[in-house]
Amino acid sequence: MVGGCNEDVCVGREDLPVEHRCAENSAVEDCYREHGSCRRVQERCHWLESEALHQCVERTAGPVRVANCLFTMTASPGGGTRDVVRCNCSGRVFLVGAGPGDPKLLTVRGLELLKQADLVVYDHLVSPAVLAMCAPTAQKRYVGKEPEGRRVSQRSINRLLVQAARASKTVVRLKGGDPFVFGRGGEEALELAKAKVAFELVPGISSALAVPAYAGIPVTYRKLASSVAIITGHEDPTKGGSRVQWDRLATACDTLVCLMGVKTLPSIAKQLLRHGR
Amino acid sequence: MVGGCNEDVCVGREDLPVEHRCAENSAVEDCYREHGSCRRVQERCHWLESEALHQCVERTAGPVRVANCLFTMTASPGGGTRDVVRCNCSGRVFLVGAGPGDPKLLTVRGLELLKQADLVVYDHLVSPAVLAMCAPTAQKRYVGKEPEGRRVSQRSINRLLVQAARASKTVVRLKGGDPFVFGRGGEEALELAKAKVAFELVPGISSALAVPAYAGIPVTYRKLASSVAIITGHEDPTKGGSRVQWDRLATACDTLVCLMGVKTLPSIAKQLLRHGR
Repeated sequence: MVGGCNEDVCVGREDLPVEHRCAENSAVEDCYREHGSCRRVQERCHWLESEALHQCVERTAGPVRVANCLFTMTASPGGGTRDVVRCNCSGRVFLVGAGPGDPKLLTVRGLELLKQADLVVYDHLVSPAVLAMCAPTAQKRYVGKEPEGRRVSQRSINRLLVQAARASKTVVRLKGGDPFVFGRGGEEALELAKAKVAFELVPGISSALAVPAYAGIPVTYRKLASSVAIITGHEDPTKGGSRVQWDRLATACDTLVCLMGVKTLPSIAKQLLRHGR
Repeated sequence: MVGGCNEDVCVGREDLPVEHRCAENSAVEDCYREHGSCRRVQERCHWLESEALHQCVERTAGPVRVANCLFTMTASPGGGTRDVVRCNCSGRVFLVGAGPGDPKLLTVRGLELLKQADLVVYDHLVSPAVLAMCAPTAQKRYVGKEPEGRRVSQRSINRLLVQAARASKTVVRLKGGDPFVFGRGGEEALELAKAKVAFELVPGISSALAVPAYAGIPVTYRKLASSVAIITGHEDPTKGGSRVQWDRLATACDTLVCLMGVKTLPSIAKQLLRHGR
């Protein structure tokens, strides 16, 4: 027994043989039932439904891996759940944040996955130095959306990820910064969940926080900045129908970080000044 | 010559012997003069004045290290400048983000430094699993500020860092999440700069972005969330004199992430609802 879970299912620190980790569905379901949330997991298990597995993790002392052919999850008490998904193929997709450029700002997990990947699907903002960390045998596919140039549709990217996982590949979807900060990571995660492809999210250092830091600007500072907002500058604030509330943002937050705003900077600055910044 | 810089000073990829990297001051100054910003660096060099060194980095093709006994900097074209400081001792302080808990969410640079440190000065929120990555010989000093418990004053922490660097130690100042997101990293960097102690900032994965991601909530999502604000919940919004504009924040940003707000959550929620959330 590890922390109250069935040992065949919740195995600690990956030190049990694979056949124990890949237990039968019934054993996994027993484990969930023990924690009172089996039904919910069985009926609606996808990446948003992690509560039951979280409970399982919380009862154990160290990193835990729960894995079988229907559900997969890796987690540690300090780090939270990495993925919860019902999968129907042996391939996997890892949505990995590449950070702001320096390969040493990759996470340890991100680097480990880059070295294991069969296929790396990467964006425009991923630096060559990070790409150089991939295994020499890895296939690399560029799917960047360049401001004025070629654009691979999001639909094609989703299809590529699903097809590669179904072909049993280990896929790293590599995105500049963090996959969930203006990286469409949420959209891709949802598509993978819909297609019942197992995935794992690996956060990255976001340029929204790291670039100001490197320039000597802490985005928060006691008695000076108690809040920071990260905003897309990709929408033109002078056009109607913008989702961004520039008028309210002007005085709502102490620090404003605007991403993808090089072209719209003059009109953003004008809006902010007009509304009291 | 590397990218137009004097080879004795701007050495590429650390492949030159140390005596070339540690050039005389005059050679370093010549290099800055070549880029037209020597005076500014000489007169006011501290962590906020990185422009001259940035210019130097931009002209080179790969990662560059400029180092002598007066100025130090590490940088790469994709990753930006790590530190610029006038130092008067051989010790160094690394302000390292420990991330949200999982040791695999440390950056590669953060892990490398933990393994080299003579002294690790760590906070309340740093997980035991991350601390276990330190070299066995490293001295560990807990300086956590516990909500209801003991508190080491910021002044004592600053003094500890400066004294250890002056005693020629390699010091890692390890903070939960990112040092510049409610981590007082800015304050400590300023104290180190004032004391003329060399330091380097290593960003970490902020829980403000990673915890929602692990819970299945992308903080941005096309057509749903174009902005995210990170706010301290440490101030009670019902008390006067709060720096946080809860009334404006309620409708200014799509996603709100409140850190250190467990105790004040009911009053924060009330404020947000009252102002239109």
